[in-house]
Amino acid sequence: MSHTAELIAVGTELLLGSIANTDAQMLSQGLSALGINVYYHTVVGDNPQRLRAAVELARTRADIIITTGGLGPTCDDLTKNVLAECFGKQLVLHEPSARRIEAYFRRLHSGRPMTENNYQQAMLPEGCTVLDNDWGTAPGVAFEAGGVRVIMLPGPPRECKAMFTHRVVPYLKSLSDGVIASRTLKLFGIGESSMEAQLRDEMEAMTNPTLAPYAKEGECELRITAKAESEEAAHALIGPVEERLRAKFGPLVYGVDVPSLEAAVLQLLKARGLTFGCAESCTGGLIAKRMTDLPGASAVFRGGVVSYATQVKHTLLGVDQAVLDQYGAVSEQTARAMAEGARRALGCDLAAAATGVAGPDPDERGNPVGLVYLALAAPDGTWVRRTQQGLGRARIRHISASHAFDLARRYLSGLEMK
Amino acid sequence: MSHTAELIAVGTELLLGSIANTDAQMLSQGLSALGINVYYHTVVGDNPQRLRAAVELARTRADIIITTGGLGPTCDDLTKNVLAECFGKQLVLHEPSARRIEAYFRRLHSGRPMTENNYQQAMLPEGCTVLDNDWGTAPGVAFEAGGVRVIMLPGPPRECKAMFTHRVVPYLKSLSDGVIASRTLKLFGIGESSMEAQLRDEMEAMTNPTLAPYAKEGECELRITAKAESEEAAHALIGPVEERLRAKFGPLVYGVDVPSLEAAVLQLLKARGLTFGCAESCTGGLIAKRMTDLPGASAVFRGGVVSYATQVKHTLLGVDQAVLDQYGAVSEQTARAMAEGARRALGCDLAAAATGVAGPDPDERGNPVGLVYLALAAPDGTWVRRTQQGLGRARIRHISASHAFDLARRYLSGLEMK
Repeated sequence: MSHTAELIAVGTELLLGSIANTDAQMLSQGLSALGINVYYHTVVGDNPQRLRAAVELARTRADIIITTGGLGPTCDDLTKNVLAECFGKQLVLHEPSARRIEAYFRRLHSGRPMTENNYQQAMLPEGCTVLDNDWGTAPGVAFEAGGVRVIMLPGPPRECKAMFTHRVVPYLKSLSDGVIASRTLKLFGIGESSMEAQLRDEMEAMTNPTLAPYAKEGECELRITAKAESEEAAHALIGPVEERLRAKFGPLVYGVDVPSLEAAVLQLLKARGLTFGCAESCTGGLIAKRMTDLPGASAVFRGGVVSYATQVKHTLLGVDQAVLDQYGAVSEQTARAMAEGARRALGCDLAAAATGVAGPDPDERGNPVGLVYLALAAPDGTWVRRTQQGLGRARIRHISASHAFDLARRYLSGLEMK
Repeated sequence: MSHTAELIAVGTELLLGSIANTDAQMLSQGLSALGINVYYHTVVGDNPQRLRAAVELARTRADIIITTGGLGPTCDDLTKNVLAECFGKQLVLHEPSARRIEAYFRRLHSGRPMTENNYQQAMLPEGCTVLDNDWGTAPGVAFEAGGVRVIMLPGPPRECKAMFTHRVVPYLKSLSDGVIASRTLKLFGIGESSMEAQLRDEMEAMTNPTLAPYAKEGECELRITAKAESEEAAHALIGPVEERLRAKFGPLVYGVDVPSLEAAVLQLLKARGLTFGCAESCTGGLIAKRMTDLPGASAVFRGGVVSYATQVKHTLLGVDQAVLDQYGAVSEQTARAMAEGARRALGCDLAAAATGVAGPDPDERGNPVGLVYLALAAPDGTWVRRTQQGLGRARIRHISASHAFDLARRYLSGLEMK
């Protein structure tokens, strides 16, 4: 049986635009991976009447309602009160939650007394399933009433995500007769429309597993989702589809269930025991930043040089002044020399380099916005890739950094360097 | 007269969680600055029935409906068709828009023929106000019907933001008898709760101008909004409030209507004709990345060294090995030597440095996660700030970089260095 969920986010800060509703994005991804349809997201403020209206509407069109936010001690537990009232439940003190909140409070604010408001967080709808919150004070709640499952989660994205992953996913899986499993192939170097064109017939013919394409920031994803009686059976259905897609897209597939290109590179570097560094001009630190976003990067990442001024390319990276004069800072020759210079200067096995025009204006030699050279220097050679990207400084920089990681990924995987 | 707007985002990609609804955040901020209430955001997929239901509901509770998305050539102009139908309008070909789309297409895809779908984008509701789109192909639309203003904007955030700023804001301002103006003070170095506590009485007593506090990523904002008969009169109301807030918060205010700390630093550097560089350990390129996110950074930014490995601090920045051995990489002494080394190595007037423990684990000397030293080296001295931040690698890195910019901002503004 297929379920339909509706998401209701509660918080005036969302309506004022102080924050984006990233909880809805995270939950939508997770629900979609479980095969649960989501047809509406709604955001309401800290206002009981408007929340009630949203809930009354949601229960007419979904059998799972997930709320985020409004469980904190400063908002009088708005969400719990309204949802309990809508579904005819009493709020009662849940002793174990009160003890958990006390313990959490002691750990975080040693010495500061707990307020009455904090105990309010332990008032939960009678007969509900308590979703223990190990990442904050407000417990989550799930209950069933009138054929609708209601799930309430705290709003802060870190808590919401942990609660969804560790509490809600197991709860929702227990509702289903079957098991849903999914696997996501990550691709770099192919456009969304081209990927979709190659898959359209296949996708339409598929029912179990299903195939869902996604595009973001110059990358593509293909999620294969299967439903079966057991985890193993679901993965057995996924396997042949994964094989077929890998055969179709070959070296464009950079990983399965890896979070990003840089994470794939980090894994490969660790596996091969090699170190990495970078020299950056137009990306201005973004390659280094993305690599060091990852916990554990220090095992392989030696460092980087952001040679934004042309002179720094010469002084810190040892790029020959004659190369800079003859070919300019944005050139195949300079990219090559930057990567090789970074290997020497940083003492790393592999070094990536990026030099190009991020915009908004062409450079002084008339190179157009979006022209970027990427290079990878390794013990056995140096490779350069020339790219020309579309509009937008942030996008040009992001995709350029991705190309640098893609070069490293191809080298480390023994693929053709192009 | 006070207006109420409701936002409807159209796009299955939002319901699948491929993207977050950042358009809603941007629009909410902008509408709030215009004094327009927003009580609901709704997200629906590319589905005419569900979009119609959302629109029918919205028109009962708002007098401005703003849709985002569903205007692209691949989705059969879903949004325009449904909205035109709901409000009893015919779609007619708008010749000037057809010409604009042709011109835009020629510029971007020289040689590629335009498809019939692209012409669909020029079919607009009869009698509407066309909001010219200089940032993409789909024009925006505004019309009035049955007491409701309907505004349709393209979904891609870059287009949506430009269209809102340059087309919708003037349109909405023309609806109002008065003029709304706002100014935003940006603060660094004070927590949200502390700031709010100092303002609570004042805020409650204010009606025009009003004062709205925001907190994000270690920074605070105070937006002053006034309504009056003219722009000048509104700013005359804002002036004294700004003065009072500046007097209250003093050097914690780093700018007014500036987008970020790094933008404030860039402005100050340009005004003073000074150059900037950085040496980064735990921030791993983020300081350089944030500075080079800004167009025009090349006028003042020389570059940076990401000295992630301890040895690189010695070889590229010239940090004395004895200092590293005695005090460790995470120390006041190393931060100081990194900043001074970066000034020399990069040949810049000012250099910022960051070294600390971003986590997830304490360093090998037992320094706790979140302990970060920032330094600023200038011709007349070097200053070090020690900070200890809360949980989360991304947050620790972001706030550390902000502290580095804050040191530079204080130095360049002639404020006390602390």
